[in-house]
Amino acid sequence: MRDVAVIGIGGTKFGSFPEKSLLDLGMEACAKAIKDAHVKPSDIQLAYAGNLAQWEWGQGLLIGHLVLRELGITKIPILRVENGCATASCAFREAWYRVATGECDIALAFGVEQMTVVDSDKMLRIFTGRQFPEREGDMGLSAPGLFAMMAKRHMEEYGTTREQLAMIAVKNRRFGALNPEAQLTHAVSLDEVLNSRMICDPLTLFQCCPRGDGAAAVVLASADIARQYTSKPVTVAASVHVTGSYPDDTSYTYLDADVRGAQKAYEMASLGPDDIDLAEVHDCFSTAELVHYEDLGFCKKGEGGQFIESGQSDMGGKVVVNPSGGLLSKGHIIGATGISQIIEIIRQLRGEAGKRQVEGARVALQHNGGGFIHTDTGSSLIHIFKT
Amino acid sequence: MRDVAVIGIGGTKFGSFPEKSLLDLGMEACAKAIKDAHVKPSDIQLAYAGNLAQWEWGQGLLIGHLVLRELGITKIPILRVENGCATASCAFREAWYRVATGECDIALAFGVEQMTVVDSDKMLRIFTGRQFPEREGDMGLSAPGLFAMMAKRHMEEYGTTREQLAMIAVKNRRFGALNPEAQLTHAVSLDEVLNSRMICDPLTLFQCCPRGDGAAAVVLASADIARQYTSKPVTVAASVHVTGSYPDDTSYTYLDADVRGAQKAYEMASLGPDDIDLAEVHDCFSTAELVHYEDLGFCKKGEGGQFIESGQSDMGGKVVVNPSGGLLSKGHIIGATGISQIIEIIRQLRGEAGKRQVEGARVALQHNGGGFIHTDTGSSLIHIFKT
Repeated sequence: MRDVAVIGIGGTKFGSFPEKSLLDLGMEACAKAIKDAHVKPSDIQLAYAGNLAQWEWGQGLLIGHLVLRELGITKIPILRVENGCATASCAFREAWYRVATGECDIALAFGVEQMTVVDSDKMLRIFTGRQFPEREGDMGLSAPGLFAMMAKRHMEEYGTTREQLAMIAVKNRRFGALNPEAQLTHAVSLDEVLNSRMICDPLTLFQCCPRGDGAAAVVLASADIARQYTSKPVTVAASVHVTGSYPDDTSYTYLDADVRGAQKAYEMASLGPDDIDLAEVHDCFSTAELVHYEDLGFCKKGEGGQFIESGQSDMGGKVVVNPSGGLLSKGHIIGATGISQIIEIIRQLRGEAGKRQVEGARVALQHNGGGFIHTDTGSSLIHIFKT
Repeated sequence: MRDVAVIGIGGTKFGSFPEKSLLDLGMEACAKAIKDAHVKPSDIQLAYAGNLAQWEWGQGLLIGHLVLRELGITKIPILRVENGCATASCAFREAWYRVATGECDIALAFGVEQMTVVDSDKMLRIFTGRQFPEREGDMGLSAPGLFAMMAKRHMEEYGTTREQLAMIAVKNRRFGALNPEAQLTHAVSLDEVLNSRMICDPLTLFQCCPRGDGAAAVVLASADIARQYTSKPVTVAASVHVTGSYPDDTSYTYLDADVRGAQKAYEMASLGPDDIDLAEVHDCFSTAELVHYEDLGFCKKGEGGQFIESGQSDMGGKVVVNPSGGLLSKGHIIGATGISQIIEIIRQLRGEAGKRQVEGARVALQHNGGGFIHTDTGSSLIHIFKT
C-alpha cells in the first residue's frame, strides 16, 4: 500500500442548528474541506459519507449523494457507512484504504449528524440500549450506566478518585473554551464539575458529553501528489479497525478492542505510545478518557487517575489529550465525531491550532469507539498521523 | 488486484415473517453461507453488512455486529453500508475489494431487511420521495411514478406496447414459480398481469415488485485458496459502482449510470454483452427490466420490447434474464436484494439451479440500482461472474 495524506479539512461549528438541514451541514463541511485542499470538486474521484441514523431523525435518505450533488460532484462512487459512534472514522478509513490501494488518487470522507431536531424521548429510546432487551438493555446498561460502572470499578481497583475523573472535564472544557468550533465554550472549575447534576454516580452532568448538530470533512490524496495541493500534508501512519469481545476476565476497567487496536496501530506505524505528542480520544464520558490513557499505553494500567492529576495529559505533559476540547466540549455529533477529531489533529500537526497549539507536535493519535464498547458489538477505530 | 471467488452462498426465503427478528433473518443467511463454504466461523476475517434502515423500521442498531456475535465471530472489522436499493451489492463489493487487494483472504458479505413489520403509511412516506420536497418529491416522482413515466416515453419513442411490458412480469413470475425461496410462487398469465390493479399507468400491480423480509449472504475468498473449500468456485470478473447524473439530453428512456457502469464492467471483465449467458437485473418494475436490456447492451436502444416478445430474455434466448424470478417474484427486500441476485447467479454457474437451470451457463451479470436512478443520486452496481 502507498502512503496517503490528508490535504484538506473542513468542519462546521458543533451546536444546535434547527434552522439548518442535514444537507446544509454536510455541504458546509465538504465545501470547506475542498477549498482547504485546493482541489476542484471534479478532482474528487470517490467519497464515503458517515451518518448514523438520518432516517431515524426523519431526514430522508441518500445524504451522501445529496451533498455531492449540491457540490456539483457526479458520477463517482459514494457510499454511506455506519458503525455506531465510530461511524465517521469508518468513513475516513474506507476512503483512506481506497487511496492507499490505488483505486483513486483523491477522495472525500465526511460525516454529518443532526441530533437536536429529535425529541429527547426518542433520543433516549435509541441510546439506552433497549433495542436489545435480550442483552444489555434489560440490565439498565445505557451508555452513562456502562461508564459509571466502569468508573466505580476503577475507583475500587486502583483508588481513582471522583476528583481525578472530574479533572478530565475541567481540562477538556478549558481547551474547548479555546476552540471556536466547539459547542460548549466556557471553562468550568473542579467544583462546578463535581457539583453539576448527578447523572449516574459518579458521573455528573459535566462529565457526560452533550449531543448536537454538525459535520466534518477531509480530503485525502496519495502522498506522492499531496504536495501539489498543500505545503503541509499530514500522512496517515496507521489505520486500524477492530471489533471487541467480552472480556476474558472479570475486570471491567479496560476495553479489549482498544488495547488490541492500539497495539496493531503502533505496529503499523512503527511507533509507540512514547512517540505520540497529542491525541484526540473518545471522551464521551470522563471515565472513557481515563481508561483510554491506559488502554492506548500513555500510562500503565490503573495509573489513569495519577496521569490526569499530574498534568500528563495537559499542555506540557507527556501526551496532550483532547486539545480540541473533546466530546465533552464539542458534543458527540455521532456521524461527524471521528472526522472532527481528525480535523483537530491535522490543525495541530500543521501548527494552525492557535491558542490551543501543542508546541512542536509531529505525531498524533486519533481514537474513536463505537457500539456497546465493552462487548463484541464494540469497535475501536484508531489512526496515527505524522507530519 | 488478485482474483476473488464466491465460495459459499446462503439465503432465507423471502416473504412476510413478522415472527422473526432482523437478527434471526441475518443469522439464518450467514450460517447457511458459512456452512455452504465449508469454512469455520473463525475463518472469517472481515465482514460487511448491508441494511437500509434498521432504525427506521424500529429494529435497533448494529445489526452487523449482532449477527456476527450470534455466529461466534468476534474481533474482526465489521461495517454496515447503505446505498438505497443497491445496499446489498455495495456490501458485496466492499468485501470483494478487501479480498482482491489482499487485506484478508476470506470475507463475509450479507444483507438483511425486514419491511413487513412497518406500517404502509410509514413505508409510503419513505419511498415516495417526500424527503426531498425541493427535488423529486414535490413533482410526484415516487418510484412507480418515475418508472411509469419512463414506460410512457419508451412507448412513445419506440412503439413499445403494454403487452410487451407485461410479458416481463409473466416471464419472471413463471421463473419465480420454480424458485422455492421466492415470495410469489405462482405463475400469472398475460391477461392477469394486464388486468391486475392499475398502480401508475401503464404499470399494473403485477408489474411492481412487492416488499418483504429476508436476508442473503455470501462468503468470498481469494481465488488461489478457493478450491480448498469448494469444487465449484465462481470468480468475480468485474465489480463496478458508479453514480449517475441528470441526462445530458431530454430522453427519459435510459439510465446514465447503467450505461456507463455496463461499459466499465465489460472492460474490466474483458467480455461483452454477447458473452453473458444469464443476468439478474433490478426489475423493481417491468419498465426497469426493459430498459436494462438496452442499457446493458443485450439489445439495441429501443428494441427492448421486441427483445422480450421474441423470447430473447427467456430460456433458450440470447440472455436469460432473472431466472430467479427477479424482484417481481422475490420482492425487493432492499438490504438483501443485491446479494440475493448474486446467490442465484452462483447457483446457476454451479449448475445447481434445478428446474430453472440455464443450460451451459458460464458467464453471468448482476445488476442492482439504487437511489433516484434517473439523477445524480442514482447508483448502478454491476458484477460479472464466471466459472
